[in-house]
Amino acid sequence: MITFVLGGAKSGKTRWSLRYAEDLTGFKNYYYLATAEAHDEEMQEKIELHKKERSAFWKTIEEPINISSYLERLKDTSSVILLDCLTLWVSNLIHYRKSFEEEIKIFIEILEKYKGHERDWIILVSNEVGLGIVPEGKLAREFREKAGLLNQKIAEISDEVYFIVAGLPLLLKQKGFTGSMI
Amino acid sequence: MITFVLGGAKSGKTRWSLRYAEDLTGFKNYYYLATAEAHDEEMQEKIELHKKERSAFWKTIEEPINISSYLERLKDTSSVILLDCLTLWVSNLIHYRKSFEEEIKIFIEILEKYKGHERDWIILVSNEVGLGIVPEGKLAREFREKAGLLNQKIAEISDEVYFIVAGLPLLLKQKGFTGSMI
Amino acid sequence: MITFVLGGAKSGKTRWSLRYAEDLTGFKNYYYLATAEAHDEEMQEKIELHKKERSAFWKTIEEPINISSYLERLKDTSSVILLDCLTLWVSNLIHYRKSFEEEIKIFIEILEKYKGHERDWIILVSNEVGLGIVPEGKLAREFREKAGLLNQKIAEISDEVYFIVAGLPLLLKQKGFTGSMI
Repeated sequence: MITFVLGGAKSGKTRWSLRYAEDLTGFKNYYYLATAEAHDEEMQEKIELHKKERSAFWKTIEEPINISSYLERLKDTSSVILLDCLTLWVSNLIHYRKSFEEEIKIFIEILEKYKGHERDWIILVSNEVGLGIVPEGKLAREFREKAGLLNQKIAEISDEVYFIVAGLPLLLKQKGFTGSMI
Repeated sequence: MITFVLGGAKSGKTRWSLRYAEDLTGFKNYYYLATAEAHDEEMQEKIELHKKERSAFWKTIEEPINISSYLERLKDTSSVILLDCLTLWVSNLIHYRKSFEEEIKIFIEILEKYKGHERDWIILVSNEVGLGIVPEGKLAREFREKAGLLNQKIAEISDEVYFIVAGLPLLLKQKGFTGSMI
Repeated sequence: MITFVLGGAKSGKTRWSLRYAEDLTGFKNYYYLATAEAHDEEMQEKIELHKKERSAFWKTIEEPINISSYLERLKDTSSVILLDCLTLWVSNLIHYRKSFEEEIKIFIEILEKYKGHERDWIILVSNEVGLGIVPEGKLAREFREKAGLLNQKIAEISDEVYFIVAGLPLLLKQKGFTGSMI
Protein backbone atom coordinates (compact mmCIF):
# COMPACT_ATOMS: atom_id res chain seq x y z
CA MET A 1 0.00 0.00 0.00
CA ILE A 2 1.06 3.56 -0.65
CA THR A 3 -0.16 6.35 1.63
CA PHE A 4 0.84 9.83 0.59
CA VAL A 5 0.84 12.51 3.30
CA LEU A 6 1.13 16.07 2.06
CA GLY A 7 1.30 19.15 4.23
CA GLY A 8 2.94 22.48 4.93
CA ALA A 9 5.89 23.28 7.15
CA LYS A 10 5.02 22.58 10.80
CA SER A 11 1.64 21.22 9.77
CA GLY A 12 2.15 18.15 11.96
CA LYS A 13 2.46 15.85 8.95
CA THR A 14 5.33 13.79 10.42
CA ARG A 15 3.62 13.39 13.78
CA TRP A 16 0.36 12.43 12.10
CA SER A 17 2.15 9.93 9.85
CA LEU A 18 3.96 8.33 12.80
CA ARG A 19 0.69 7.82 14.65
CA TYR A 20 -0.97 6.55 11.49
CA ALA A 21 1.86 4.08 10.86
CA GLU A 22 1.93 2.89 14.49
CA ASP A 23 -1.77 2.03 14.19
CA LEU A 24 -1.02 -0.33 11.29
CA THR A 25 -0.83 -3.79 12.80
CA GLY A 26 0.32 -7.14 11.48
CA PHE A 27 3.72 -5.93 10.25
CA LYS A 28 7.13 -7.18 11.40
CA ASN A 29 9.23 -4.07 10.90
CA TYR A 30 8.78 -0.32 11.16
CA TYR A 31 11.40 1.66 9.28
CA TYR A 32 11.75 5.41 9.45
CA LEU A 33 13.60 6.39 6.27
CA ALA A 34 14.96 9.89 6.84
CA THR A 35 16.19 11.99 3.93
CA ALA A 36 17.26 14.94 6.10
CA GLU A 37 20.93 15.91 6.18
CA ALA A 38 22.23 18.38 8.70
CA HIS A 39 23.90 21.14 6.71
CA ASP A 40 23.83 23.52 9.66
CA GLU A 41 22.99 23.72 13.36
CA GLU A 42 19.35 24.65 12.76
CA MET A 43 18.85 21.53 10.66
CA GLN A 44 20.70 19.39 13.23
CA GLU A 45 18.27 20.56 15.92
CA LYS A 46 15.29 19.68 13.76
CA ILE A 47 16.65 16.18 13.13
CA GLU A 48 17.26 15.61 16.85
CA LEU A 49 13.75 16.84 17.66
CA HIS A 50 12.26 14.45 15.13
CA LYS A 51 14.29 11.57 16.59
CA LYS A 52 12.85 12.25 20.02
CA GLU A 53 9.33 12.23 18.61
CA ARG A 54 9.74 8.68 17.40
CA SER A 55 9.16 5.85 19.84
CA ALA A 56 11.68 3.05 20.31
CA PHE A 57 10.19 0.55 17.91
CA TRP A 58 11.14 2.59 14.86
CA LYS A 59 14.37 1.59 13.11
CA THR A 60 15.87 4.70 11.58
CA ILE A 61 17.64 4.70 8.22
CA GLU A 62 19.29 7.95 7.19
CA GLU A 63 19.67 8.24 3.45
CA PRO A 64 19.65 11.56 1.59
CA ILE A 65 19.78 10.19 -1.99
CA ASN A 66 19.48 6.46 -2.60
CA ILE A 67 16.06 5.89 -1.14
CA SER A 68 15.02 3.78 -4.13
CA SER A 69 17.52 1.05 -3.26
CA TYR A 70 16.05 0.84 0.26
CA LEU A 71 12.53 0.55 -1.12
CA GLU A 72 13.75 -2.22 -3.42
CA ARG A 73 15.47 -4.07 -0.56
CA LEU A 74 12.63 -3.72 1.96
CA LYS A 75 9.96 -5.04 -0.41
CA ASP A 76 8.35 -8.30 0.83
CA THR A 77 9.79 -7.98 4.34
CA SER A 78 6.42 -7.24 6.00
CA SER A 79 7.48 -3.71 6.73
CA VAL A 80 5.90 -0.37 7.32
CA ILE A 81 8.20 2.26 5.83
CA LEU A 82 7.78 5.91 6.67
CA LEU A 83 9.73 8.02 4.17
CA ASP A 84 10.22 11.52 5.58
CA CYS A 85 10.35 13.48 3.42
CA LEU A 86 10.20 13.64 -0.37
CA THR A 87 10.81 17.38 -0.66
CA LEU A 88 14.10 17.10 1.25
CA TRP A 89 15.04 14.32 -1.15
CA VAL A 90 14.30 16.64 -4.10
CA SER A 91 16.40 19.28 -2.39
CA ASN A 92 19.26 16.76 -1.95
CA LEU A 93 19.02 15.67 -5.60
CA ILE A 94 19.44 19.30 -6.66
CA HIS A 95 22.24 19.85 -4.10
CA TYR A 96 24.25 16.81 -5.31
CA ARG A 97 23.47 17.59 -8.97
CA LYS A 98 21.72 14.29 -9.60
CA SER A 99 19.41 13.85 -12.57
CA PHE A 100 15.96 14.58 -11.20
CA GLU A 101 14.11 12.89 -14.09
CA GLU A 102 16.19 9.70 -13.87
CA GLU A 103 15.98 9.37 -10.09
CA ILE A 104 12.22 9.99 -10.13
CA LYS A 105 11.72 7.42 -12.87
CA ILE A 106 13.53 4.71 -10.88
CA PHE A 107 11.74 5.74 -7.69
CA ILE A 108 8.29 5.58 -9.29
CA GLU A 109 9.03 2.17 -10.83
CA ILE A 110 9.94 0.67 -7.47
CA LEU A 111 7.14 2.46 -5.69
CA GLU A 112 4.56 0.98 -8.03
CA LYS A 113 5.36 -2.47 -6.65
CA TYR A 114 3.95 -1.30 -3.31
CA LYS A 115 0.70 -0.09 -4.86
CA GLY A 116 -2.28 -2.09 -3.63
CA HIS A 117 -0.13 -4.67 -1.81
CA GLU A 118 -1.45 -4.95 1.71
CA ARG A 119 1.58 -6.82 3.05
CA ASP A 120 3.93 -3.90 2.41
CA TRP A 121 3.01 -0.41 3.44
CA ILE A 122 4.88 2.70 2.54
CA ILE A 123 3.96 6.13 3.87
CA LEU A 124 5.43 9.01 1.92
CA VAL A 125 5.61 12.41 3.60
CA SER A 126 6.00 15.49 1.45
CA ASN A 127 5.74 19.27 1.66
CA GLU A 128 3.28 21.29 -0.34
CA VAL A 129 5.36 24.35 -1.29
CA GLY A 130 3.40 25.95 -4.14
CA LEU A 131 0.78 27.99 -2.29
CA GLY A 132 2.80 31.15 -1.68
CA ILE A 133 3.82 33.80 -4.17
CA VAL A 134 6.40 33.09 -6.89
CA PRO A 135 9.85 32.97 -5.23
CA GLU A 136 12.41 35.49 -6.49
CA GLY A 137 15.33 33.08 -6.79
CA LYS A 138 15.56 30.88 -9.88
CA LEU A 139 16.73 27.90 -7.80
CA ALA A 140 13.75 28.28 -5.48
CA ARG A 141 11.40 28.34 -8.49
CA GLU A 142 13.04 25.21 -9.90
CA PHE A 143 12.74 23.46 -6.57
CA ARG A 144 9.09 24.46 -6.31
CA GLU A 145 8.36 23.11 -9.81
CA LYS A 146 10.17 19.82 -9.18
CA ALA A 147 8.52 19.31 -5.79
CA GLY A 148 5.11 20.06 -7.26
CA LEU A 149 5.58 17.71 -10.20
CA LEU A 150 6.77 14.92 -7.92
CA ASN A 151 3.81 15.43 -5.59
CA GLN A 152 1.45 15.09 -8.56
CA LYS A 153 3.12 11.89 -9.73
CA ILE A 154 3.11 10.37 -6.25
CA ALA A 155 -0.52 11.32 -5.64
CA GLU A 156 -1.45 9.68 -8.93
CA ILE A 157 -0.04 6.26 -8.03
CA SER A 158 -0.85 6.32 -4.31
CA ASP A 159 -3.60 4.19 -2.82
CA GLU A 160 -4.60 7.02 -0.53
CA VAL A 161 -3.66 10.66 -0.12
CA TYR A 162 -4.06 12.97 2.87
CA PHE A 163 -3.52 16.70 3.08
CA ILE A 164 -2.61 17.72 6.63
CA VAL A 165 -3.62 21.17 7.90
CA ALA A 166 -2.78 22.10 11.51
CA GLY A 167 -2.41 18.43 12.38
CA LEU A 168 -5.80 17.48 10.91
CA PRO A 169 -6.20 15.28 7.83
CA LEU A 170 -8.20 16.08 4.73
CA LEU A 171 -8.75 12.93 2.69
CA LEU A 172 -7.87 13.63 -0.94
CA LYS A 173 -7.93 10.12 -2.31
CA GLN A 174 -9.09 6.71 -1.16
CA LYS A 175 -9.16 3.95 -3.70
CA GLY A 176 -9.93 0.25 -3.74
CA PHE A 177 -9.46 -0.05 -0.01
CA THR A 178 -11.61 0.38 3.04
CA GLY A 179 -9.73 -0.28 6.25
CA SER A 180 -10.34 0.29 9.90
CA MET A 181 -7.87 3.13 10.26
CA ILE A 182 -9.84 5.56 8.17
CA MET B 1 -21.90 27.58 -15.90
CA ILE B 2 -18.88 28.85 -14.00
CA THR B 3 -16.35 26.38 -12.64
CA PHE B 4 -13.57 27.88 -10.57
CA VAL B 5 -10.36 25.86 -10.22
CA LEU B 6 -7.96 27.08 -7.58
CA GLY B 7 -4.57 25.58 -6.80
CA GLY B 8 -0.90 26.16 -6.09
CA ALA B 9 2.01 26.34 -8.49
CA LYS B 10 2.56 22.97 -10.18
CA SER B 11 -0.52 21.59 -8.46
CA GLY B 12 -1.78 20.16 -11.75
CA LYS B 13 -4.68 22.62 -11.89
CA THR B 14 -4.33 23.28 -15.63
CA ARG B 15 -4.07 19.60 -16.50
CA TRP B 16 -7.05 18.79 -14.28
CA SER B 17 -9.07 21.62 -15.84
CA LEU B 18 -8.27 20.46 -19.37
CA ARG B 19 -9.45 16.93 -18.61
CA TYR B 20 -12.52 18.28 -16.83
CA ALA B 21 -13.36 20.51 -19.81
CA GLU B 22 -12.78 17.74 -22.36
CA ASP B 23 -15.30 15.60 -20.50
CA LEU B 24 -17.98 18.25 -21.01
CA THR B 25 -19.99 17.14 -24.01
CA GLY B 26 -22.60 18.80 -26.17
CA PHE B 27 -20.58 21.94 -26.89
CA LYS B 28 -19.50 23.20 -30.29
CA ASN B 29 -16.27 24.99 -29.42
CA TYR B 30 -13.45 24.60 -26.93
CA TYR B 31 -11.45 27.76 -26.36
CA TYR B 32 -8.29 27.94 -24.33
CA LEU B 33 -7.96 31.59 -23.30
CA ALA B 34 -4.35 32.08 -22.21
CA THR B 35 -3.34 35.17 -20.24
CA ALA B 36 0.36 34.26 -20.12
CA GLU B 37 2.87 36.55 -21.81
CA ALA B 38 6.46 35.50 -22.30
CA HIS B 39 8.56 38.20 -20.62
CA ASP B 40 11.58 35.92 -20.52
CA GLU B 41 12.87 32.55 -21.71
CA GLU B 42 11.67 30.70 -18.60
CA MET B 43 8.13 31.92 -19.22
CA GLN B 44 8.38 31.08 -22.94
CA GLU B 45 9.26 27.48 -22.05
CA LYS B 46 6.28 27.23 -19.71
CA ILE B 47 3.94 28.49 -22.41
CA GLU B 48 5.31 26.00 -24.96
CA LEU B 49 4.95 23.16 -22.44
CA HIS B 50 1.35 24.13 -21.78
CA LYS B 51 0.66 24.24 -25.53
CA LYS B 52 1.93 20.68 -25.89
CA GLU B 53 -0.33 19.53 -23.06
CA ARG B 54 -3.40 20.63 -24.95
CA SER B 55 -4.87 18.34 -27.54
CA ALA B 56 -5.68 19.51 -31.06
CA PHE B 57 -9.33 20.32 -30.56
CA TRP B 58 -8.57 23.32 -28.37
CA LYS B 59 -8.53 26.70 -30.10
CA THR B 60 -6.03 28.92 -28.34
CA ILE B 61 -6.58 32.63 -27.78
CA GLU B 62 -3.69 34.55 -26.26
CA GLU B 63 -4.83 37.68 -24.48
CA PRO B 64 -3.01 39.17 -21.49
CA ILE B 65 -5.48 41.97 -20.67
CA ASN B 66 -8.79 42.17 -22.52
CA ILE B 67 -10.24 38.83 -21.48
CA SER B 68 -13.61 40.43 -20.70
CA SER B 69 -14.20 41.29 -24.35
CA TYR B 70 -13.62 37.65 -25.33
CA LEU B 71 -16.07 36.46 -22.67
CA GLU B 72 -18.59 38.94 -24.02
CA ARG B 73 -18.07 37.80 -27.61
CA LEU B 74 -18.09 34.06 -26.90
CA LYS B 75 -21.32 34.13 -24.93
CA ASP B 76 -24.13 32.09 -26.59
CA THR B 77 -21.77 30.30 -28.99
CA SER B 78 -22.11 26.91 -27.30
CA SER B 79 -18.52 27.10 -26.08
CA VAL B 80 -16.42 25.71 -23.31
CA ILE B 81 -13.89 28.39 -22.35
CA LEU B 82 -10.89 27.56 -20.21
CA LEU B 83 -9.36 30.77 -18.88
CA ASP B 84 -5.81 30.08 -17.69
CA CYS B 85 -5.12 31.87 -15.49
CA LEU B 86 -6.61 34.68 -13.44
CA THR B 87 -3.52 35.38 -11.35
CA LEU B 88 -1.42 36.01 -14.46
CA TRP B 89 -4.14 38.39 -15.60
CA VAL B 90 -3.88 40.22 -12.25
CA SER B 91 -0.12 40.32 -12.74
CA ASN B 92 -0.57 41.75 -16.25
CA LEU B 93 -3.05 44.37 -15.01
CA ILE B 94 -0.44 45.54 -12.50
CA HIS B 95 2.35 45.38 -15.11
CA TYR B 96 0.42 47.50 -17.63
CA ARG B 97 -0.85 49.85 -14.90
CA LYS B 98 -4.51 49.15 -15.56
CA SER B 99 -7.14 49.95 -12.98
CA PHE B 100 -7.64 46.71 -11.08
CA GLU B 101 -11.00 47.73 -9.60
CA GLU B 102 -12.42 48.81 -12.95
CA GLU B 103 -11.24 45.75 -14.88
CA ILE B 104 -12.53 43.40 -12.18
CA LYS B 105 -15.89 45.15 -12.15
CA ILE B 106 -16.34 44.69 -15.92
CA PHE B 107 -15.08 41.12 -15.74
CA ILE B 108 -17.48 40.15 -12.94
CA GLU B 109 -20.41 41.74 -14.77
CA ILE B 110 -19.79 39.69 -17.90
CA LEU B 111 -18.97 36.57 -15.93
CA GLU B 112 -22.30 36.71 -14.15
CA LYS B 113 -24.04 36.08 -17.47
CA TYR B 114 -22.43 32.64 -17.50
CA LYS B 115 -23.66 31.79 -14.00
CA GLY B 116 -26.10 28.91 -14.04
CA HIS B 117 -26.34 28.82 -17.85
CA GLU B 118 -25.76 25.26 -18.94
CA ARG B 119 -25.24 26.11 -22.62
CA ASP B 120 -22.11 28.16 -21.92
CA TRP B 121 -19.39 26.85 -19.69
CA ILE B 122 -16.44 28.82 -18.43
CA ILE B 123 -13.67 27.26 -16.38
CA LEU B 124 -11.52 29.76 -14.53
CA VAL B 125 -8.10 28.67 -13.34
CA SER B 126 -6.38 30.64 -10.60
CA ASN B 127 -3.46 30.40 -8.20
CA GLU B 128 -3.86 30.41 -4.46
CA VAL B 129 -0.89 32.52 -3.37
CA GLY B 130 -1.70 33.51 0.22
CA LEU B 131 -0.57 30.47 2.19
CA GLY B 132 3.09 31.35 2.63
CA ILE B 133 4.61 33.98 4.87
CA VAL B 134 4.14 37.71 4.19
CA PRO B 135 6.34 38.63 1.19
CA GLU B 136 8.99 41.30 1.80
CA GLY B 137 8.34 43.33 -1.34
CA LYS B 138 5.46 45.80 -1.33
CA LEU B 139 4.54 44.89 -4.92
CA ALA B 140 4.39 41.21 -3.99
CA ARG B 141 2.11 42.02 -1.05
CA GLU B 142 -0.15 44.09 -3.30
CA PHE B 143 -0.29 41.28 -5.85
CA ARG B 144 -1.12 38.78 -3.11
CA GLU B 145 -3.94 40.98 -1.82
CA LYS B 146 -5.42 41.57 -5.25
CA ALA B 147 -5.20 37.89 -6.22
CA GLY B 148 -6.81 36.86 -2.94
CA LEU B 149 -9.63 39.38 -3.27
CA LEU B 150 -10.31 38.33 -6.84
CA ASN B 151 -10.35 34.66 -5.86
CA GLN B 152 -12.94 35.42 -3.18
CA LYS B 153 -15.13 37.32 -5.62
CA ILE B 154 -14.90 34.60 -8.26
CA ALA B 155 -15.61 31.84 -5.75
CA GLU B 156 -18.68 33.74 -4.60
CA ILE B 157 -20.31 33.88 -8.03
CA SER B 158 -19.12 30.50 -9.32
CA ASP B 159 -21.47 27.56 -9.70
CA GLU B 160 -18.78 25.22 -8.44
CA VAL B 161 -15.32 25.59 -6.94
CA TYR B 162 -12.48 23.08 -6.74
CA PHE B 163 -9.22 23.35 -4.83
CA ILE B 164 -6.53 21.22 -6.51
CA VAL B 165 -3.79 19.68 -4.35
CA ALA B 166 -1.18 17.45 -6.04
CA GLY B 167 -3.52 16.92 -8.98
CA LEU B 168 -6.45 15.89 -6.79
CA PRO B 169 -9.64 17.96 -6.40
CA LEU B 170 -11.21 19.08 -3.15
CA LEU B 171 -14.77 20.22 -3.81
CA LEU B 172 -15.31 23.59 -2.12
CA LYS B 173 -18.65 24.54 -3.59
CA GLN B 174 -21.37 22.86 -5.58
CA LYS B 175 -24.63 24.71 -6.03
CA GLY B 176 -27.85 24.18 -7.86
CA PHE B 177 -26.35 21.55 -10.08
CA THR B 178 -25.79 17.82 -9.94
CA GLY B 179 -24.09 16.54 -13.03
CA SER B 180 -22.41 13.38 -14.13
CA MET B 181 -18.88 14.72 -14.16
CA ILE B 182 -18.62 15.14 -10.38
CA MET C 1 -17.05 26.41 22.45
CA ILE C 2 -13.90 26.91 20.47
CA THR C 3 -14.09 27.45 16.72
CA PHE C 4 -10.76 27.66 14.94
CA VAL C 5 -10.71 29.39 11.56
CA LEU C 6 -7.54 28.93 9.55
CA GLY C 7 -6.81 30.47 6.18
CA GLY C 8 -4.34 32.27 3.97
CA ALA C 9 -3.84 35.98 3.45
CA LYS C 10 -6.92 37.55 1.85
CA SER C 11 -8.75 34.24 2.02
CA GLY C 12 -11.78 35.91 3.53
CA LYS C 13 -11.28 34.23 6.91
CA THR C 14 -12.14 37.36 8.93
CA ARG C 15 -15.24 38.09 6.92
CA TRP C 16 -16.37 34.48 7.12
CA SER C 17 -15.75 34.44 10.89
CA LEU C 18 -17.72 37.65 11.42
CA ARG C 19 -20.71 36.22 9.58
CA TYR C 20 -20.37 32.93 11.42
CA ALA C 21 -20.24 34.73 14.77
CA GLU C 22 -23.18 36.99 13.95
CA ASP C 23 -25.27 33.91 13.24
CA LEU C 24 -24.66 32.64 16.79
CA THR C 25 -27.71 33.65 18.77
CA GLY C 26 -28.49 33.65 22.48
CA PHE C 27 -25.41 35.58 23.56
CA LYS C 28 -25.30 38.91 25.35
CA ASN C 29 -22.04 40.34 24.05
CA TYR C 30 -20.00 40.23 20.86
CA TYR C 31 -16.35 41.13 21.32
CA TYR C 32 -13.90 41.61 18.52
CA LEU C 33 -10.47 41.11 20.07
CA ALA C 34 -7.95 42.60 17.65
CA THR C 35 -4.25 41.81 17.97
CA ALA C 36 -3.19 44.06 15.08
CA GLU C 37 -0.92 47.02 15.79
CA ALA C 38 -0.28 49.67 13.20
CA HIS C 39 3.49 49.79 12.75
CA ASP C 40 3.15 51.61 9.44
CA GLU C 41 0.63 53.26 7.16
CA GLU C 42 -0.11 50.05 5.21
CA MET C 43 -1.06 48.31 8.45
CA GLN C 44 -3.12 51.29 9.59
CA GLU C 45 -5.16 51.11 6.39
CA LYS C 46 -5.79 47.41 6.90
CA ILE C 47 -7.01 48.00 10.45
CA GLU C 48 -9.36 50.77 9.32
CA LEU C 49 -10.70 48.55 6.54
CA HIS C 50 -11.37 45.76 9.02
CA LYS C 51 -13.16 48.19 11.34
CA LYS C 52 -15.49 49.19 8.53
CA GLU C 53 -16.29 45.57 7.79
CA ARG C 54 -17.64 45.07 11.28
CA SER C 55 -21.18 46.05 12.04
CA ALA C 56 -22.09 48.25 15.01
CA PHE C 57 -22.94 45.54 17.49
CA TRP C 58 -19.30 44.42 17.81
CA LYS C 59 -17.37 45.85 20.74
CA THR C 60 -13.74 46.15 19.71
CA ILE C 61 -10.85 45.46 22.09
CA GLU C 62 -7.38 46.18 20.76
CA GLU C 63 -4.73 44.16 22.51
CA PRO C 64 -1.49 43.07 20.86
CA ILE C 65 -0.10 40.91 23.70
CA ASN C 66 -2.25 40.21 26.77
CA ILE C 67 -5.10 38.41 25.07
CA SER C 68 -5.11 35.70 27.74
CA SER C 69 -6.22 38.14 30.43
CA TYR C 70 -9.19 39.17 28.29
CA LEU C 71 -10.19 35.56 27.73
CA GLU C 72 -9.97 35.02 31.49
CA ARG C 73 -12.08 38.09 32.21
CA LEU C 74 -14.74 37.46 29.55
CA LYS C 75 -15.37 33.87 30.60
CA ASP C 76 -18.97 33.30 31.85
CA THR C 77 -20.26 36.61 30.50
CA SER C 78 -22.37 35.02 27.75
CA SER C 79 -20.06 36.38 25.09
CA VAL C 80 -19.03 35.57 21.59
CA ILE C 81 -15.37 36.51 21.23
CA LEU C 82 -13.73 36.78 17.84
CA LEU C 83 -9.95 36.81 18.25
CA ASP C 84 -8.35 38.15 15.07
CA CYS C 85 -5.72 36.95 14.67
CA LEU C 86 -3.38 34.48 16.33
CA THR C 87 -0.52 34.86 13.85
CA LEU C 88 -0.33 38.61 14.47
CA TRP C 89 -0.20 37.79 18.17
CA VAL C 90 2.74 35.42 17.52
CA SER C 91 4.36 38.20 15.53
CA ASN C 92 3.82 40.64 18.41
CA LEU C 93 5.24 38.17 20.95
CA ILE C 94 8.41 37.94 18.85
CA HIS C 95 8.50 41.73 18.32
CA TYR C 96 8.24 42.48 22.07
CA ARG C 97 10.62 39.61 22.95
CA LYS C 98 8.08 37.76 25.07
CA SER C 99 8.55 34.10 25.92
CA PHE C 100 6.56 32.26 23.27
CA GLU C 101 6.39 28.99 25.24
CA GLU C 102 5.19 30.69 28.44
CA GLU C 103 2.57 32.86 26.75
CA ILE C 104 1.23 29.91 24.74
CA LYS C 105 1.03 27.75 27.86
CA ILE C 106 -1.07 30.36 29.71
CA PHE C 107 -3.21 30.95 26.63
CA ILE C 108 -3.95 27.26 26.11
CA GLU C 109 -4.84 26.80 29.80
CA ILE C 110 -7.43 29.57 29.66
CA LEU C 111 -8.66 28.52 26.26
CA GLU C 112 -9.38 25.02 27.50
CA LYS C 113 -12.06 26.43 29.82
CA TYR C 114 -14.01 27.41 26.71
CA LYS C 115 -13.81 23.94 25.19
CA GLY C 116 -17.24 22.32 24.92
CA HIS C 117 -18.99 25.10 26.89
CA GLU C 118 -21.94 26.25 24.85
CA ARG C 119 -22.56 29.42 26.86
CA ASP C 120 -19.19 30.92 25.89
CA TRP C 121 -18.03 30.92 22.33
CA ILE C 122 -14.61 31.88 21.14
CA ILE C 123 -13.68 32.05 17.48
CA LEU C 124 -9.95 32.06 16.82
CA VAL C 125 -8.73 33.30 13.45
CA SER C 126 -5.26 32.34 12.29
CA ASN C 127 -3.10 32.36 9.18
CA GLU C 128 -1.74 29.23 7.59
CA VAL C 129 1.76 30.33 6.55
CA GLY C 130 3.62 27.07 5.90
CA LEU C 131 2.58 26.22 2.35
CA GLY C 132 5.16 28.22 0.45
CA ILE C 133 8.86 27.55 0.06
CA VAL C 134 11.27 27.86 3.00
CA PRO C 135 11.79 31.58 3.69
CA GLU C 136 15.36 32.86 3.43
CA GLY C 137 15.37 34.91 6.63
CA LYS C 138 15.96 33.12 9.93
CA LEU C 139 13.34 35.27 11.69
CA ALA C 140 10.77 34.38 9.03
CA ARG C 141 11.56 30.68 9.50
CA GLU C 142 11.19 31.02 13.27
CA PHE C 143 7.88 32.81 12.85
CA ARG C 144 6.66 30.13 10.46
CA GLU C 145 7.59 27.38 12.91
CA LYS C 146 5.95 29.09 15.88
CA ALA C 147 2.79 29.90 13.92
CA GLY C 148 2.57 26.32 12.66
CA LEU C 149 3.09 24.82 16.12
CA LEU C 150 0.47 27.11 17.64
CA ASN C 151 -2.01 26.25 14.89
CA GLN C 152 -1.53 22.54 15.62
CA LYS C 153 -2.07 23.06 19.35
CA ILE C 154 -5.18 25.18 18.81
CA ALA C 155 -6.63 22.74 16.29
CA GLU C 156 -6.11 19.94 18.79
CA ILE C 157 -8.17 21.53 21.56
CA SER C 158 -10.78 23.21 19.36
CA ASP C 159 -14.34 21.93 19.13
CA GLU C 160 -14.39 22.63 15.43
CA VAL C 161 -11.88 23.70 12.82
CA TYR C 162 -12.44 25.30 9.41
CA PHE C 163 -9.93 25.94 6.65
CA ILE C 164 -11.03 28.87 4.50
CA VAL C 165 -10.07 28.94 0.81
CA ALA C 166 -11.29 31.86 -1.32
CA GLY C 167 -14.00 32.61 1.22
CA LEU C 168 -15.30 29.04 1.27
CA PRO C 169 -15.00 26.76 4.32
CA LEU C 170 -13.52 23.27 4.40
CA LEU C 171 -14.55 21.52 7.60
CA LEU C 172 -11.46 19.95 9.20
CA LYS C 173 -12.88 18.97 12.56
CA GLN C 174 -16.30 18.70 14.15
CA LYS C 175 -16.54 17.01 17.51
CA GLY C 176 -19.26 16.32 20.02
CA PHE C 177 -21.46 18.97 18.56
CA THR C 178 -24.07 19.17 15.84
CA GLY C 179 -25.54 22.62 15.56
CA SER C 180 -27.67 24.47 13.09
CA MET C 181 -24.96 26.76 11.82
CA ILE C 182 -22.99 23.98 10.15
